[in-house]
Amino acid sequence: MGLARKDLLGMKDVSAEEITLILDTAESFIEVSSREIKKVPTLRGKTIINLFYEASTRTRTSFEIAGKRLSADTINISAATSSVVKGETLIDTARNLEAMNPDIIVIRHSVSGTPHLLARLVRQSIINAGDGTHEHPTQALLDMMTIRSRLGTLKDVEVAIVGDIAHSRVARSNIYGLRKMGAKVTVAGPATMMPRDVGAFGVRVCDTLEEAVRGKDVIMMLRIQKERQHSHLFPSLREYSARFCLTGESLALAAKDVLVMHPGPINRGVEIAPDIADGPQSVILEQVTNGVAVRMAILYLLGGGMP
Amino acid sequence: MGLARKDLLGMKDVSAEEITLILDTAESFIEVSSREIKKVPTLRGKTIINLFYEASTRTRTSFEIAGKRLSADTINISAATSSVVKGETLIDTARNLEAMNPDIIVIRHSVSGTPHLLARLVRQSIINAGDGTHEHPTQALLDMMTIRSRLGTLKDVEVAIVGDIAHSRVARSNIYGLRKMGAKVTVAGPATMMPRDVGAFGVRVCDTLEEAVRGKDVIMMLRIQKERQHSHLFPSLREYSARFCLTGESLALAAKDVLVMHPGPINRGVEIAPDIADGPQSVILEQVTNGVAVRMAILYLLGGGMP
Amino acid sequence: MGLARKDLLGMKDVSAEEITLILDTAESFIEVSSREIKKVPTLRGKTIINLFYEASTRTRTSFEIAGKRLSADTINISAATSSVVKGETLIDTARNLEAMNPDIIVIRHSVSGTPHLLARLVRQSIINAGDGTHEHPTQALLDMMTIRSRLGTLKDVEVAIVGDIAHSRVARSNIYGLRKMGAKVTVAGPATMMPRDVGAFGVRVCDTLEEAVRGKDVIMMLRIQKERQHSHLFPSLREYSARFCLTGESLALAAKDVLVMHPGPINRGVEIAPDIADGPQSVILEQVTNGVAVRMAILYLLGGGMP
Repeated sequence: MGLARKDLLGMKDVSAEEITLILDTAESFIEVSSREIKKVPTLRGKTIINLFYEASTRTRTSFEIAGKRLSADTINISAATSSVVKGETLIDTARNLEAMNPDIIVIRHSVSGTPHLLARLVRQSIINAGDGTHEHPTQALLDMMTIRSRLGTLKDVEVAIVGDIAHSRVARSNIYGLRKMGAKVTVAGPATMMPRDVGAFGVRVCDTLEEAVRGKDVIMMLRIQKERQHSHLFPSLREYSARFCLTGESLALAAKDVLVMHPGPINRGVEIAPDIADGPQSVILEQVTNGVAVRMAILYLLGGGMP
Repeated sequence: MGLARKDLLGMKDVSAEEITLILDTAESFIEVSSREIKKVPTLRGKTIINLFYEASTRTRTSFEIAGKRLSADTINISAATSSVVKGETLIDTARNLEAMNPDIIVIRHSVSGTPHLLARLVRQSIINAGDGTHEHPTQALLDMMTIRSRLGTLKDVEVAIVGDIAHSRVARSNIYGLRKMGAKVTVAGPATMMPRDVGAFGVRVCDTLEEAVRGKDVIMMLRIQKERQHSHLFPSLREYSARFCLTGESLALAAKDVLVMHPGPINRGVEIAPDIADGPQSVILEQVTNGVAVRMAILYLLGGGMP
Repeated sequence: MGLARKDLLGMKDVSAEEITLILDTAESFIEVSSREIKKVPTLRGKTIINLFYEASTRTRTSFEIAGKRLSADTINISAATSSVVKGETLIDTARNLEAMNPDIIVIRHSVSGTPHLLARLVRQSIINAGDGTHEHPTQALLDMMTIRSRLGTLKDVEVAIVGDIAHSRVARSNIYGLRKMGAKVTVAGPATMMPRDVGAFGVRVCDTLEEAVRGKDVIMMLRIQKERQHSHLFPSLREYSARFCLTGESLALAAKDVLVMHPGPINRGVEIAPDIADGPQSVILEQVTNGVAVRMAILYLLGGGMP
């Protein structure tokens, strides 16, 4: 059984049933990555293009490993070495790649909506690996997989998401996904980092970290984009971390077995105290492990391979 | 049956029989790329090095996909990350790569003649993926494949090539190849972009786009190298496109079912009007598809693999 | 039989028995790279990450070819395109990669000791592909393999190492390795390039090239890091090569069948006269060929694959 869709562009248009299918499939792939021979012939003879217009280690590597463990041929294209240098439009790049008959194109781009544009243009499956400040659906799926495997369910789980909610594609995708699965989401961050229409997201909004994490089952700390700190929307790093860095003190307000999550890369001491990032509550590295499995699941379900 | 040659350096020294063999072989590979499982074991255990000293998406990707669909191991080396940084000579780089026992080295370099130098130095097959303003034989072969598959033959086909003839490796390789196959070639472009010895190429020379395309079966528009526009040899972009951009008006002068071609990446509105690039006469994306098949054919014929 | 160790970090802590096992294994892999089908299924389903924080053609390519010829999946990460850009710490990068369940991480880094730090942090096998001015064990092993295959033994072989001994990871690894195998090592170089504690290395120290090479079986010329030449520790290039460039004249002082070695890339005319680099005594390209075999051996012995 596969997904009855061509693309994975965002959590906004994915149903609870689809999320459950993806997570169930991902769980079956966890086993493959822990085998002696970490490879199944599922996508042999399929071509996957990783088209990354933004620097990335973990996401690109995670997709590449996922593809190779499914026996697909993987091709990396990064903006720095691509025809982008020659000024080709994204549309022409997409049509050209399409003409080479790949099966799946994984794209990361700094402009929101780019994967959606691509998906309309080409017949291949498009997977959004992060578009601007919009969505990062595979991150949300690996986050949900991590919560579900730890807590057994997503239903009625209380999740706090803390940081730059307005500009975080991770926050946006998680809010869409978590709510569909019945979780309850609270957000917190500086006023300048809160979307103006945050009321429309169906989340509770708190002004302080302490208020947001109180009694929560899961705390998801967002990465701060340091490069934005000279903008007037951004408080100083010092000011930010004084108010919103997750420390032992604030963590004590959460539920006893709270899960601490972060999409990485961490700015240690800014979003999260180092001892918390590495502490017993942290499931940050489980998120990474689950990331490979989630991406294998999505590549498999969209790639139409045989299990 | 293979090619009785070690290298593919340019169309100048390839015979009509060899061209026909390559195109026939490429046609058989078109089918592979449209299969569910796009892979044949032909070059299993062979090592192909893509050594690119110039940025490229489509050509590098096309060669990489071609190699992987033949089951070869492909290794990418780009100048930016290579020992070039450490000042190693090309000759030493070549000898070092030779010592690692690859089977084929695909090279792109901004200096004309580099692949020929390499071919004399090393025992491996060298494929020229574009050298300076000299040759780009696989582009010419995919262009010829596209024409032949559309028109059934290359013999007596009337082809106009328009643009910077003097500095275009695409033009040069196509002129050599097309003439060997019996096609008739007309060229046009600004006087400063016409080779001084253009008479020696066996082509008709026109001053205007309109004159060049009149009655033609194929129009091949060359890419403008915008980075050259501050040189005195280069008219302004505006002046260039006013005279040599292919529009509906000029296209109407060509044969009824004329094929419109471009090696890409396109500067839309400079060499070719967007509606013509995307119009019913355009075979630009077929060129890209055929590019993978042509490169599979060449890798196969030089790599000595079993079909 | 494998190596009873998780990592290969340096020659300092590798025993003579282990060196012999690696070299014997490497010799059996020489045959694989000269086959028609240069591939064995040894490491099928294993994931090897090449994590390069410094530019490199030959070492990265050598490891990548070695991995692919063993049928492993190879993933390249270079600093320029990695999360390093986002300021992630090496420790977090390492833990993240670990969480993706690779089998082996090959690392090159400009900071001495980085591979050792990684090895303590992660459960995967770490292979040092060069760390700062510290060690480069696979280079030493391929050098020893080259000497042993030419001279039949390493025992009592007289080796001169010439150049920037203080800052050369190649020199350091070779001194450790060669001495364990019973070779006798002499070093020479400008006084500013000699380690202050050179007496502790168990080598003979000479002031001149001529004195160092006299009667030697092997001369190993080190690469000059031109970028250091504006430091006060570095004589001018002209001065350096006048005293320490290996020429026919100095070569005549060595043993009759002396082997001339260089780790590459060569600065021709600086460390070694071009006619000597390309002459009958030079085994520089054999070193490169042996490099692939040595890396296959190490990947195989650490990767725990079946032969």
